[in-house]
Amino acid sequence: MTAALNLGGVPTVGTPPTEQAQSLAHVLALVRARLAQTRPDVARVSGYGRTVVTERLGQLIDAGMIEEGETGSIPRGRAPRLLSFRPKAGVILAAELETNDITVGVTDLDGTILSSRQVPHTMTPDVEVSIATLDKALDAVLSDAGIARDRVWGMGLGVPFPVEYGSARAIATPGWNAWDGYNLREHFERRLGAPTWTDNDVNLMALGEARAGLARGIDDFAYVRVGRGVGGGIVSGGRLHRGAQGAAGAIGHIKVAETSAVICRCGSTGCLQTVASGGALLGIATQLAASGASPQLQQKLAQLGHVELEDLAAAARDGDRAANVALETSAQYLGTAIATLVNLHNPALVLLGGPVVGLSQAYLANVRAEVLRKALPLATRNLRIEISPLGDRTGLIGAAAMVVDELLSPQMLDSWVSLGTPRALIDRGARP
Amino acid sequence: MTAALNLGGVPTVGTPPTEQAQSLAHVLALVRARLAQTRPDVARVSGYGRTVVTERLGQLIDAGMIEEGETGSIPRGRAPRLLSFRPKAGVILAAELETNDITVGVTDLDGTILSSRQVPHTMTPDVEVSIATLDKALDAVLSDAGIARDRVWGMGLGVPFPVEYGSARAIATPGWNAWDGYNLREHFERRLGAPTWTDNDVNLMALGEARAGLARGIDDFAYVRVGRGVGGGIVSGGRLHRGAQGAAGAIGHIKVAETSAVICRCGSTGCLQTVASGGALLGIATQLAASGASPQLQQKLAQLGHVELEDLAAAARDGDRAANVALETSAQYLGTAIATLVNLHNPALVLLGGPVVGLSQAYLANVRAEVLRKALPLATRNLRIEISPLGDRTGLIGAAAMVVDELLSPQMLDSWVSLGTPRALIDRGARP
Amino acid sequence: MTAALNLGGVPTVGTPPTEQAQSLAHVLALVRARLAQTRPDVARVSGYGRTVVTERLGQLIDAGMIEEGETGSIPRGRAPRLLSFRPKAGVILAAELETNDITVGVTDLDGTILSSRQVPHTMTPDVEVSIATLDKALDAVLSDAGIARDRVWGMGLGVPFPVEYGSARAIATPGWNAWDGYNLREHFERRLGAPTWTDNDVNLMALGEARAGLARGIDDFAYVRVGRGVGGGIVSGGRLHRGAQGAAGAIGHIKVAETSAVICRCGSTGCLQTVASGGALLGIATQLAASGASPQLQQKLAQLGHVELEDLAAAARDGDRAANVALETSAQYLGTAIATLVNLHNPALVLLGGPVVGLSQAYLANVRAEVLRKALPLATRNLRIEISPLGDRTGLIGAAAMVVDELLSPQMLDSWVSLGTPRALIDRGARP
Amino acid sequence: MTAALNLGGVPTVGTPPTEQAQSLAHVLALVRARLAQTRPDVARVSGYGRTVVTERLGQLIDAGMIEEGETGSIPRGRAPRLLSFRPKAGVILAAELETNDITVGVTDLDGTILSSRQVPHTMTPDVEVSIATLDKALDAVLSDAGIARDRVWGMGLGVPFPVEYGSARAIATPGWNAWDGYNLREHFERRLGAPTWTDNDVNLMALGEARAGLARGIDDFAYVRVGRGVGGGIVSGGRLHRGAQGAAGAIGHIKVAETSAVICRCGSTGCLQTVASGGALLGIATQLAASGASPQLQQKLAQLGHVELEDLAAAARDGDRAANVALETSAQYLGTAIATLVNLHNPALVLLGGPVVGLSQAYLANVRAEVLRKALPLATRNLRIEISPLGDRTGLIGAAAMVVDELLSPQMLDSWVSLGTPRALIDRGARP
Repeated sequence: MTAALNLGGVPTVGTPPTEQAQSLAHVLALVRARLAQTRPDVARVSGYGRTVVTERLGQLIDAGMIEEGETGSIPRGRAPRLLSFRPKAGVILAAELETNDITVGVTDLDGTILSSRQVPHTMTPDVEVSIATLDKALDAVLSDAGIARDRVWGMGLGVPFPVEYGSARAIATPGWNAWDGYNLREHFERRLGAPTWTDNDVNLMALGEARAGLARGIDDFAYVRVGRGVGGGIVSGGRLHRGAQGAAGAIGHIKVAETSAVICRCGSTGCLQTVASGGALLGIATQLAASGASPQLQQKLAQLGHVELEDLAAAARDGDRAANVALETSAQYLGTAIATLVNLHNPALVLLGGPVVGLSQAYLANVRAEVLRKALPLATRNLRIEISPLGDRTGLIGAAAMVVDELLSPQMLDSWVSLGTPRALIDRGARP
Repeated sequence: MTAALNLGGVPTVGTPPTEQAQSLAHVLALVRARLAQTRPDVARVSGYGRTVVTERLGQLIDAGMIEEGETGSIPRGRAPRLLSFRPKAGVILAAELETNDITVGVTDLDGTILSSRQVPHTMTPDVEVSIATLDKALDAVLSDAGIARDRVWGMGLGVPFPVEYGSARAIATPGWNAWDGYNLREHFERRLGAPTWTDNDVNLMALGEARAGLARGIDDFAYVRVGRGVGGGIVSGGRLHRGAQGAAGAIGHIKVAETSAVICRCGSTGCLQTVASGGALLGIATQLAASGASPQLQQKLAQLGHVELEDLAAAARDGDRAANVALETSAQYLGTAIATLVNLHNPALVLLGGPVVGLSQAYLANVRAEVLRKALPLATRNLRIEISPLGDRTGLIGAAAMVVDELLSPQMLDSWVSLGTPRALIDRGARP
Repeated sequence: MTAALNLGGVPTVGTPPTEQAQSLAHVLALVRARLAQTRPDVARVSGYGRTVVTERLGQLIDAGMIEEGETGSIPRGRAPRLLSFRPKAGVILAAELETNDITVGVTDLDGTILSSRQVPHTMTPDVEVSIATLDKALDAVLSDAGIARDRVWGMGLGVPFPVEYGSARAIATPGWNAWDGYNLREHFERRLGAPTWTDNDVNLMALGEARAGLARGIDDFAYVRVGRGVGGGIVSGGRLHRGAQGAAGAIGHIKVAETSAVICRCGSTGCLQTVASGGALLGIATQLAASGASPQLQQKLAQLGHVELEDLAAAARDGDRAANVALETSAQYLGTAIATLVNLHNPALVLLGGPVVGLSQAYLANVRAEVLRKALPLATRNLRIEISPLGDRTGLIGAAAMVVDELLSPQMLDSWVSLGTPRALIDRGARP
Repeated sequence: MTAALNLGGVPTVGTPPTEQAQSLAHVLALVRARLAQTRPDVARVSGYGRTVVTERLGQLIDAGMIEEGETGSIPRGRAPRLLSFRPKAGVILAAELETNDITVGVTDLDGTILSSRQVPHTMTPDVEVSIATLDKALDAVLSDAGIARDRVWGMGLGVPFPVEYGSARAIATPGWNAWDGYNLREHFERRLGAPTWTDNDVNLMALGEARAGLARGIDDFAYVRVGRGVGGGIVSGGRLHRGAQGAAGAIGHIKVAETSAVICRCGSTGCLQTVASGGALLGIATQLAASGASPQLQQKLAQLGHVELEDLAAAARDGDRAANVALETSAQYLGTAIATLVNLHNPALVLLGGPVVGLSQAYLANVRAEVLRKALPLATRNLRIEISPLGDRTGLIGAAAMVVDELLSPQMLDSWVSLGTPRALIDRGARP
């Protein structure tokens, strides 16, 4: 345990949870991670006294999260019984609200997806419409999985806005004010009766990659998603780095371009998002069609009255120079921004996701080349940059992981374990 | 303790040190931070059994790091005796090797500086010259403090290169190859007989600010130094974020300018350092003098054959427009880079240091305005940007803190505590 | 007559036309400009001997270009008869071939438009289709005016490509190769039986402005047209400056932007045309709609599947910030390019034309402000920048003026005057 | 004679000088250019009547500018006597006032330099000091040539400011106000007793190249000088294009860079001059030395306290990467600006002069490559870009040519020819 650094000339161990809370969570974590599989193991590995161990295990077994199995067989004497974590003790609802669709899923406490669905939906400033659609989708996926609502231990929601994690407030951009004021946590806690956490969608994808993707076991990594916008999630020293207000990872808004013609959704100009997102590429494709710089896109525009992102990708595949340059340049802009992230954070891995990164075969190569060109050699020496093979499930996995992490954190676990289920906290209005 | 996230769908607690090592360091940390001041306190706060507590305290008292004081007085019965940390148990040597000078100091285990000196020195590709100068300065500062070399428990060194922290290798830039191969740790461990750690100078300044400056108690902050070059140190979640190769915080090399005329020391172009450092301002001052765009600087150039940074500052104070624009623009470039850092990292505090930030009264205001203009509103809502009042001592304090943190970390502490002093590890060739 | 400068240390008067040709054209010019209205006037103003004057006037009267009118009345003796130019001696066909339409007109020798029509037409790489449409339009406009083809003295054509004026070759851009090889002059001379000249469309608009617009009487001016592309025409010292290959005035291809994402029709990047043309604004409007940065455009896109330039203008009028910034920035880019033109050419007047300059009321103000900001004070001190009130007729007027200038130039006039009509040159295959 | 274009729908021949003035200048030009070498020739080529020719030749012979030589021999009858121009009829003083030196010369009417000298001199805001130095230099060069002041027919002066040609006012930049108000023409006309003309130095170099350099006989060309600043002169259709205020050719102030750190002497930012001039390169060299990016320059700086332009060139020759990149980039910036000039002006030739263009062997190649990359293919197809072999004499030749052109222009010539010498105009206060 590296000591943290914030008490005068002397480092502190933080404002600690109570010893009760801390040891409860620690014992659960040791069993869950199979670092201790018997009662003597738990005592030995933790250093806790026998009384403490017995008491904590008792609470966890009562809550159904740990079960004591068969007696093991050892050379001499009666073997201790094996302890194991019960991922089916509760279920988690996970949801991702995106600009063009909603994805929902049901998982166990290990994050294994039991059922999921995706629903088309155009997000508008009218928050109630989106929430109603989401409610319906959640009901449907529970029904798909044959699970009653009262077995839900918690819900995790990803939204395409920065989220002040502590207060669960989404920080909406200009023109989306209704979202800003909306209390998402309150709505879902009231409707579902289970504790709810909300975070930025890309943070949750990063978390999903850290748990179930290429980033497993990597302490310092970043996830970057390029879709209609561009977002990032940063893991530092094995922990999601949310920053002081939960705004960390906003790679889509770092300034990479001089142009001031295109206002970003954030209200500023020059943002990566204004030159490397799907929306930016759609604008470029339209211009190439209108100016005649791409004859193939020009024809599409004449035929259909508009062009789509897939037309740009098709033109590029057919060798159209303008289309290829547009995709290459967007990859280079992304590379420039990632080089900056690499210079500042020096991750071991950068994972790319989202629809744009797959528009061209050369995309990844262009990103990599630009990062190598613009980041410090030391920081790129062992750097891997990959396209995430997990695809769209990352966000759900991350949302579930967020909820489980929170439910099993010392203070929270301590607050509900004696009540048998986290739902009791909502029921009693006692959520910490 | 928030669980870290890297074992499949299940988070892990990391490859843990042995229970012995972990509890030893934990007990010391509790006493040092005054979270536990008696034996019963230690047992209660840690949850450790009485045997464990007794054994660990015994080791720490034997090594001279904890002492047991007077018996306290309580209403009824004999009070337990008070435990306290002994900062004078050992001394630490701290050193900063900079391009134009060397600073050395002696501190106690709390980082209190007992004695220090600064020696002028021009760093060149000839590493031996710098090392010899540094050796002499270290001897001198020990002699100033009246401390014998064999009381030194460890040495911390900051260098103006990125450092691969694990291997203690400085990663020198083109033209400085001799530094690249030089084994700094080996040299000082052999010469001083005490364990040595090396890190990038600005990382150590950040650490110093976290321990003894405005950043005390702030989990997410960044330190940015603008001198001959520009460097940064990032603290994430209360810990120095060094990144996968120790290269994190390289804010001086993020690309903020389109110009490709000026090669950076890193070999690339467009780096912040090429437009916002003292070296960049000196170049601009020279151009303004040569072109006649600044009459005042032109006169200086005619008189002296060259101009200095202080001439630029003086011209700005006298109202020279070109000089003011140069300083403002350099501050804006710094602001642009800090906005990027803020978007990615969302710190609560950014501290500025180094000689350039003091060249103009408006400097800080210009930096702040640019950050507000270019970073996300959510990330700047509560952001503080300040000039560090600690000044030049930050680096020494940080170097000492690094050494103490390492000496008292679980694995390291466990390896030497029974030998009485960390020096024994070097003596026996047994440094972990 | 300012001597031109190209013979060693001694200036030359150029390779002169024969004296016969020169005096013929000069006499016609004096009468046409009413600088000499009687035979004695012509002799006095020109300095030519009586024989020369008599002979030249005879030729011009025979060709129907000058008529001798009533005897004037003077105090004493018989007054000389008044000479006047006959603009109806012949008619000129004028045509503009644009990307989206074709405009044709019939004018007299003074450039007065007798009849005109505009025909919708989408220009494609298939040159024959465009030529056939143009042929039909020319027939129609002659028929509108009740004029037989054999009264046509010449034809002038503007095309949206640079034209090597001497060879009448259009220099087409990549993807438009068929146009490149097509001999426009040959086609029209064969079909119409009259000499034909071709120039870049914007050069002809500049010429039109110089003859009939705000630029009348101004020696140094520039015309800039912002439509689907951006083009310019430059008048230097009272003459259209075509440059060595007829490529002068290519303001749409000067580099004003750093971006390399959008390939220009010319195959390069960063061209003014890629950031300030109608095509560029359509691309930006699409992006603002797709990203949601402009809620109003986003709604349009959702309703119609695409947005149009007029939607951007409407959003701007309704106060949409993103739309206004897009139009302002495009005006600023135009201003940057015009500032460059102003620094290099120092015109007294810059006239703006084309559909984009009218999209926003603030457009002209933004252009002007940027020019003032970026051009030398000396060059902007008396500079006027205006939107041309002539509108679309400029090009036809210029095309006709080009033809008349050529027909009445010394060498050309001399070659056909004795034949009675310029058509005879084509008939005999004797065009100089 | 191509008709100029500025009278309504009908082109005009300009506000003409009187017939007397026009024919006088035309007859002189024909003889001077050897287009007519006998009286009958003059009548035939000009078309003027015998009386006019006799009268004009008489005036020119009386003024000593034309002499009638030996009778030629022809097959039959008495041959006419040969007419020739007398370049020694008068002498011209030519001067260039530069930032670091003054060059003066005496020439005949053909621009042949009879004597010249260069005097070191640092131009300051104190105009009187410069004028006094110039006065002395002019006296000295006349004395060198053994020519009395009263044989001087005119003086031509080049200054490193834009000049409003008509009023002879230099338009000085901020900080040089004293120059702004100074009446250079009045001073020299009073002191020398001969008509004086002033123009921007680089305009005169362009004129010199047009008369005696690689640009002889080329109608459309541009001269670009890169010294402490960057300036240009443009020739359009065989005539120096001065523009409406004499500010044309200001290539040094077109915007090629985004940087706003360096104020130009003109008060603006981003000017070519701030990135491609000698002053800019000196600033870069200083920065490379200070930052250590160029070890060789760093050493020079350590040794001498400053670096010079020649050190940069030497480092580049020795293979120093940073020095080479600095020179290459400055050449590319120049190429970008020239590409813009080429797109707007389409010259057949661009000549480069000044000390910077010779700092590196690769300079010209870099300029050419950038022009090819950024200008329209049509405009570069036959474009030549060369370094002027004339070197420093160009300016003097151009200054003399300006004076002779003016003295022999119709209106001016007519005003003094009957007085025998242009000096009489000053004497009588009768300069037109």
